[in-house]
Amino acid sequence: MKTAYVLNGPNLNLLGTREPAVYGRDTLDDVVARCQAACDRHGWSLVHLQSNHEGALVDALHDAGRLHARGELVGVVINAGAYTHTSIALHDAIKATGVVCVELHISNVYAREPFRHHSFLSPVCRGVVCGLGTAGYTLALDALAATA
Amino acid sequence: MKTAYVLNGPNLNLLGTREPAVYGRDTLDDVVARCQAACDRHGWSLVHLQSNHEGALVDALHDAGRLHARGELVGVVINAGAYTHTSIALHDAIKATGVVCVELHISNVYAREPFRHHSFLSPVCRGVVCGLGTAGYTLALDALAATA
Amino acid sequence: MKTAYVLNGPNLNLLGTREPAVYGRDTLDDVVARCQAACDRHGWSLVHLQSNHEGALVDALHDAGRLHARGELVGVVINAGAYTHTSIALHDAIKATGVVCVELHISNVYAREPFRHHSFLSPVCRGVVCGLGTAGYTLALDALAATA
Amino acid sequence: MKTAYVLNGPNLNLLGTREPAVYGRDTLDDVVARCQAACDRHGWSLVHLQSNHEGALVDALHDAGRLHARGELVGVVINAGAYTHTSIALHDAIKATGVVCVELHISNVYAREPFRHHSFLSPVCRGVVCGLGTAGYTLALDALAATA
Amino acid sequence: MKTAYVLNGPNLNLLGTREPAVYGRDTLDDVVARCQAACDRHGWSLVHLQSNHEGALVDALHDAGRLHARGELVGVVINAGAYTHTSIALHDAIKATGVVCVELHISNVYAREPFRHHSFLSPVCRGVVCGLGTAGYTLALDALAATA
Amino acid sequence: MKTAYVLNGPNLNLLGTREPAVYGRDTLDDVVARCQAACDRHGWSLVHLQSNHEGALVDALHDAGRLHARGELVGVVINAGAYTHTSIALHDAIKATGVVCVELHISNVYAREPFRHHSFLSPVCRGVVCGLGTAGYTLALDALAATA
Amino acid sequence: MKTAYVLNGPNLNLLGTREPAVYGRDTLDDVVARCQAACDRHGWSLVHLQSNHEGALVDALHDAGRLHARGELVGVVINAGAYTHTSIALHDAIKATGVVCVELHISNVYAREPFRHHSFLSPVCRGVVCGLGTAGYTLALDALAATA
Amino acid sequence: MKTAYVLNGPNLNLLGTREPAVYGRDTLDDVVARCQAACDRHGWSLVHLQSNHEGALVDALHDAGRLHARGELVGVVINAGAYTHTSIALHDAIKATGVVCVELHISNVYAREPFRHHSFLSPVCRGVVCGLGTAGYTLALDALAATA
Amino acid sequence: MKTAYVLNGPNLNLLGTREPAVYGRDTLDDVVARCQAACDRHGWSLVHLQSNHEGALVDALHDAGRLHARGELVGVVINAGAYTHTSIALHDAIKATGVVCVELHISNVYAREPFRHHSFLSPVCRGVVCGLGTAGYTLALDALAATA
Amino acid sequence: MKTAYVLNGPNLNLLGTREPAVYGRDTLDDVVARCQAACDRHGWSLVHLQSNHEGALVDALHDAGRLHARGELVGVVINAGAYTHTSIALHDAIKATGVVCVELHISNVYAREPFRHHSFLSPVCRGVVCGLGTAGYTLALDALAATA
Amino acid sequence: MKTAYVLNGPNLNLLGTREPAVYGRDTLDDVVARCQAACDRHGWSLVHLQSNHEGALVDALHDAGRLHARGELVGVVINAGAYTHTSIALHDAIKATGVVCVELHISNVYAREPFRHHSFLSPVCRGVVCGLGTAGYTLALDALAATA
Amino acid sequence: MKTAYVLNGPNLNLLGTREPAVYGRDTLDDVVARCQAACDRHGWSLVHLQSNHEGALVDALHDAGRLHARGELVGVVINAGAYTHTSIALHDAIKATGVVCVELHISNVYAREPFRHHSFLSPVCRGVVCGLGTAGYTLALDALAATA
Repeated sequence: MKTAYVLNGPNLNLLGTREPAVYGRDTLDDVVARCQAACDRHGWSLVHLQSNHEGALVDALHDAGRLHARGELVGVVINAGAYTHTSIALHDAIKATGVVCVELHISNVYAREPFRHHSFLSPVCRGVVCGLGTAGYTLALDALAATA
Repeated sequence: MKTAYVLNGPNLNLLGTREPAVYGRDTLDDVVARCQAACDRHGWSLVHLQSNHEGALVDALHDAGRLHARGELVGVVINAGAYTHTSIALHDAIKATGVVCVELHISNVYAREPFRHHSFLSPVCRGVVCGLGTAGYTLALDALAATA
Repeated sequence: MKTAYVLNGPNLNLLGTREPAVYGRDTLDDVVARCQAACDRHGWSLVHLQSNHEGALVDALHDAGRLHARGELVGVVINAGAYTHTSIALHDAIKATGVVCVELHISNVYAREPFRHHSFLSPVCRGVVCGLGTAGYTLALDALAATA
Repeated sequence: MKTAYVLNGPNLNLLGTREPAVYGRDTLDDVVARCQAACDRHGWSLVHLQSNHEGALVDALHDAGRLHARGELVGVVINAGAYTHTSIALHDAIKATGVVCVELHISNVYAREPFRHHSFLSPVCRGVVCGLGTAGYTLALDALAATA
Repeated sequence: MKTAYVLNGPNLNLLGTREPAVYGRDTLDDVVARCQAACDRHGWSLVHLQSNHEGALVDALHDAGRLHARGELVGVVINAGAYTHTSIALHDAIKATGVVCVELHISNVYAREPFRHHSFLSPVCRGVVCGLGTAGYTLALDALAATA
Repeated sequence: MKTAYVLNGPNLNLLGTREPAVYGRDTLDDVVARCQAACDRHGWSLVHLQSNHEGALVDALHDAGRLHARGELVGVVINAGAYTHTSIALHDAIKATGVVCVELHISNVYAREPFRHHSFLSPVCRGVVCGLGTAGYTLALDALAATA
Repeated sequence: MKTAYVLNGPNLNLLGTREPAVYGRDTLDDVVARCQAACDRHGWSLVHLQSNHEGALVDALHDAGRLHARGELVGVVINAGAYTHTSIALHDAIKATGVVCVELHISNVYAREPFRHHSFLSPVCRGVVCGLGTAGYTLALDALAATA
Repeated sequence: MKTAYVLNGPNLNLLGTREPAVYGRDTLDDVVARCQAACDRHGWSLVHLQSNHEGALVDALHDAGRLHARGELVGVVINAGAYTHTSIALHDAIKATGVVCVELHISNVYAREPFRHHSFLSPVCRGVVCGLGTAGYTLALDALAATA
Repeated sequence: MKTAYVLNGPNLNLLGTREPAVYGRDTLDDVVARCQAACDRHGWSLVHLQSNHEGALVDALHDAGRLHARGELVGVVINAGAYTHTSIALHDAIKATGVVCVELHISNVYAREPFRHHSFLSPVCRGVVCGLGTAGYTLALDALAATA
Repeated sequence: MKTAYVLNGPNLNLLGTREPAVYGRDTLDDVVARCQAACDRHGWSLVHLQSNHEGALVDALHDAGRLHARGELVGVVINAGAYTHTSIALHDAIKATGVVCVELHISNVYAREPFRHHSFLSPVCRGVVCGLGTAGYTLALDALAATA
Repeated sequence: MKTAYVLNGPNLNLLGTREPAVYGRDTLDDVVARCQAACDRHGWSLVHLQSNHEGALVDALHDAGRLHARGELVGVVINAGAYTHTSIALHDAIKATGVVCVELHISNVYAREPFRHHSFLSPVCRGVVCGLGTAGYTLALDALAATA
Repeated sequence: MKTAYVLNGPNLNLLGTREPAVYGRDTLDDVVARCQAACDRHGWSLVHLQSNHEGALVDALHDAGRLHARGELVGVVINAGAYTHTSIALHDAIKATGVVCVELHISNVYAREPFRHHSFLSPVCRGVVCGLGTAGYTLALDALAATA
């Protein structure tokens, strides 16, 4: 049985209470449940991590990388939140481990402040799903299946 | 019965022969068939247009806008190709008609030349699906359903 | 009898329905009627064209240029819409034909997004009328008379 | 009887002698006479001020603001000359008083040096009239009437 | 008895009426009273000046500089308004006289337009108090006492 | 009894030994004592945290956010040190929790290297106190009281 | 018999009358005759198109691409006029079809306005001939022969 | 007898006390005496003005312009201080009056802060003398004689 | 016996498996052994830390700073990986502790992506060794000896 | 008999061995022979110089300028290599002597690194031939004949 | 007897023939004679060098530096021509030798192309004389005397 | 016996006297002796050149390239001084000859003026040694041995 990783970065633990006009009313638990359902549908096990620490997300990508090296990883759906725009360390971790990533944003970052328009992750991800709300997590996992 | 629009911009008529390493081997006919299947699954009719002319794409958005005003439009999946990066006219057409758009790119534009990193469409689209190959068309149509 | 040209660019066919808070409730037909009235007052015939196609606007400027070469043109009032900000071809057409143009914007473009602050047309137009609503068309035609 | 303000900034007292190829041969007195005629036609009284002092123009806008608060002001036609491009104080004065302003330039500033292309006034004015010579003053006053 | 200067720049005479959502409802008289109270508490005399003229503020700093040279100045609280962002002359006056200044802004300038984010005064002031409303004047005077 | 948070970011544990010409001779313990005294005076309890880890500061803001949601928080004084200039995660945490923050810098960051001139926190803080030494902590807590 | 394409973009139909000091007195017919003579000399047939429409030029490149795929194309000499500086669609069309192009400008664009200094076509053309007047067309066709 | 103007801008009244390491120990009176001596040597009368008001310097250039129009002006030596770097009004006044100006700086502005490296006056002055201390005033007046 | 610190930042735990064409085949254990040998040769003890957490690297520099204050530190060789380009906190930690650092990069960062060309550490390090592979660690430790 | 100059700048002596994928296999001797043949065909004598020294190329342009002043120069074909992008001295030499130059590049510089996209020579040359390999030398000499 | 150096850079050997509208009709011999006269007046010997080679100018500054180290140099008047704007080597030579330099330009470089507005020499020269024609050489030598 | 090249650029002949606080007290002779010792230790012969002429350094790299083509070159240690930041010709010479270079700077250029932060050599060198004083020459030669 292969494993899919879903990584959520800083402040995503506040989902549902944080600016609902922007992020919707789903909580992080709702997102995890949604991801679990999609993984069940695809026959994958799910590893989920939310952290406010950049280093912890790097560590988790290394964990995924070890599965990948053994051929046991489907890929990673990563919503790095604010670290999307500032973290070269995450960029390097994706590149160094060679894992297949789909970058995800709940809101349409391109319709927000200019400092959210640049992503250090995009150039090393397979693709990007953005602005489609929490439904995007399901679509991103489906995309991992469709492009495997 | 509601209608979904799929709009493809310049050079997408060359799909399948154009830089297959970047765009894959699916032809535009394959893409249309794939979109038709997704629309059938959702119970929508499909209008598809490919054009190399910016003005023709603006016209098509106006057509979609007329359906939208009558409550008969699901939304628009738009892969504006090169016009993504240069066309304020398409930006204005989306905003003026108020249609719900999902922006789509077959390749991961953020991993390519810098002049492909900025989109005039993103700020007025609901979201973006990028880098997921021709499978992205299905995902984008699903996203219209999921976020309707 | 001399002729005045009024050219309207992309999306201006949606006037009256498009973002009325920005563009007002006058339709394009209202604008044409208003221009006709002003031309009647000045004793000019009116040629009006609205197009979503950049090339069609270039063609129309060439038509005006032929009148100009015969001394039969008053001038051109041009609201190039989104092409204002992206079209060097229109810049070149004005310069190449030598027609007298007054650039017009219904809304105050300088109070909107930064990408609307630069105009390729301004340096080759006689002047600019902007932000005065559809009344600006009358004022711009009056300006052609006043500065003839 | 309502009042219209016409404010002229630095160096405009030199009109008629200053670079006539750019600014024409009308003197400031001619401009004032032209404005007086337009105000007479509209049934307004006219207050005119020319000053080379940025602070004096701010003061004058405050004066206009007091009329505006009493409902006795038509609006302000302001040709701030060089301060157009550097004065945040004038920007603030217009915003703070809430007076309706039409920004005016005798020459087409967009066809001149790049440092004349940015205006701090435009975003807080209703509109802009530019490049139409001294006839622009009449048109700007007419615009105040047309958009009142 | 030592003297403290409080200098207010352009448009601050409109306090209380100018954009109350941004600047609050206190008038300039309220601010002066508040400053007088703080000076009484510290045993200082107060000199207050509001002017819309950049040169008048430079002159006032020179006056303060003469007190400073005689050891009779506590320091200067300066809210230079719009000149904050454009006036090298004020920068030079602070540097040339050597007076201790605390820069003050009633609103949070960093949350407003980008042209308000750069200050020519900050590098030559001891510190900055910003966004704390008219209460900031008291805090800034207290800061002069605390860091004397 | 309400609670005030004081958060100190990276390297502030070195206060008193680190570049005393820039930061003064007060130690972090002195700062905490000073904050405790101010909170005692206002009748608040104090929570203080110093951390070199960005994620730990995000976590602490979430803690404060929980108090805030229960109406038990006065606000937060935050000296994020170097993370001021690089952390969008802290920006998001302030915005997501809705806590009232006053940004604080001991030294005048605007008189130092250009990379210290931009703050990601300022736009989401109520205000900024900067350059007033460790006395600034007292003033910032007083500001929370004055603007509550 | 192989075919050479010569494509001329917007406003080039005005050759001979448009700014003769910049573009010379040859008309477009003269240019076509000159190209025909060169093609005759090389034993090629000539396809010539002038259009003011960006999409029409994209279409023509696709036509040339079909000949190229059959080994029947010598190459394309393209003077895209103003679209040189704004059209990513033409860039993509050249890259997608794989045709050999020589970019041509009658005037020395590098000695003109800065917005004419950047070309989207150059990176995907074999080379550039610029500033050599209408004689450049002959030289560009010769270059296709010399570098075939 | 012809007249030479020497204009000194903001903060130059502080000469001799202001940062003597940068500006030397000569007072403004010393400078005027030095200029008077040079004018006596050349047989010119001298008009000197120092003002902290940008508008007052504009006014003075207009005064000089009136002499110039009567053929009675040698030229203007202008040390505009901080206004050098921000004043388009002074730029316009020099250009509008047509007076011959030599721009002067006591210190070497190019060795100081970057915001002192750009001058709005240089493009409309005959030349620049900079960094040669107060001796530069004599040299600049000599230059007016040498290049008359 | 003095101590040398060697600090390795994010993703360097993957050495040997990560992009071997860029970073070579040596593992982190090989690097530590190499460093230990160099320290033995110089008669120093070695402290080595690898962490993916920015804060942990700041903490380690503080540890080194405590040795430095007691005169027991040789210096620090720091390969901060991705944090080189984003961490002002590390910059501040080096400056605040006053430790002598040599910045090290295994690959030639100047031959890679532009975002790797700027280092926040270089201005506060004694020097830089870059592009010399894992041999650079030995050279950097030798450099600490040579420049002690 | 008139003379044509062909000037080759730094590193062009390595032609044929230097990056043959970029520059082809022709040696500098081959290029000179090719130029000699073209000059023979046009009835001109040829002066050729290759130098790695910027000053030597300036000197050579002065030599050509002396022929030009006597009416004995056809013109100059100049491939300034790396100095193209950095040498204002060569720009000035062309402008000062008034010689007719055609700028030449063997490779398509616009398809290479950004620092090769700007040329200081282009604005003062008649035209540019670029990317057409060593055949470009013949075409450039032919261009001198065609546009004489 | 002390020595003054006058150094002239590239293309200044063409003085008198090169663009006389910009540089005047004096030849380099006239300039040298003028400098000799000024040196005679001050009782100095003169060393003059003109070279088109950057390295030769560096060498000459080193020669001057040797005189300077022996107390036998008055200073250097340097018109580095085009190298002014590109040569860090000349910047370093002036700084390394410690010679007193006055930078000179015959034309007003600030009224010409933007690439002539930045000088690498100005920050390490005592001052600048610019735009005063060949008379500037005398003034610059006088400046060396006045500020010795 | 293989040969190592050490190339020193402009102003390095002044080592020991030039700004000793920045460059130390070693003379160029000391550096050459140090390099000779290192080469003796590695069993290489040494070629050393110092020149103030960019072209001479290009020539020397070509000389080294000829050895390299015969397999007789170890590599080149190049301290190009000021030309590091301005010379594309040196960049091209390294790339064209294919020699292995280590770039060296005695001082830490990243802690100095911004114009010293960019190097045209770094992208084509194997690595960089910077800020380690004249000891860096030994380390750079050792690096050539270690990475051969």
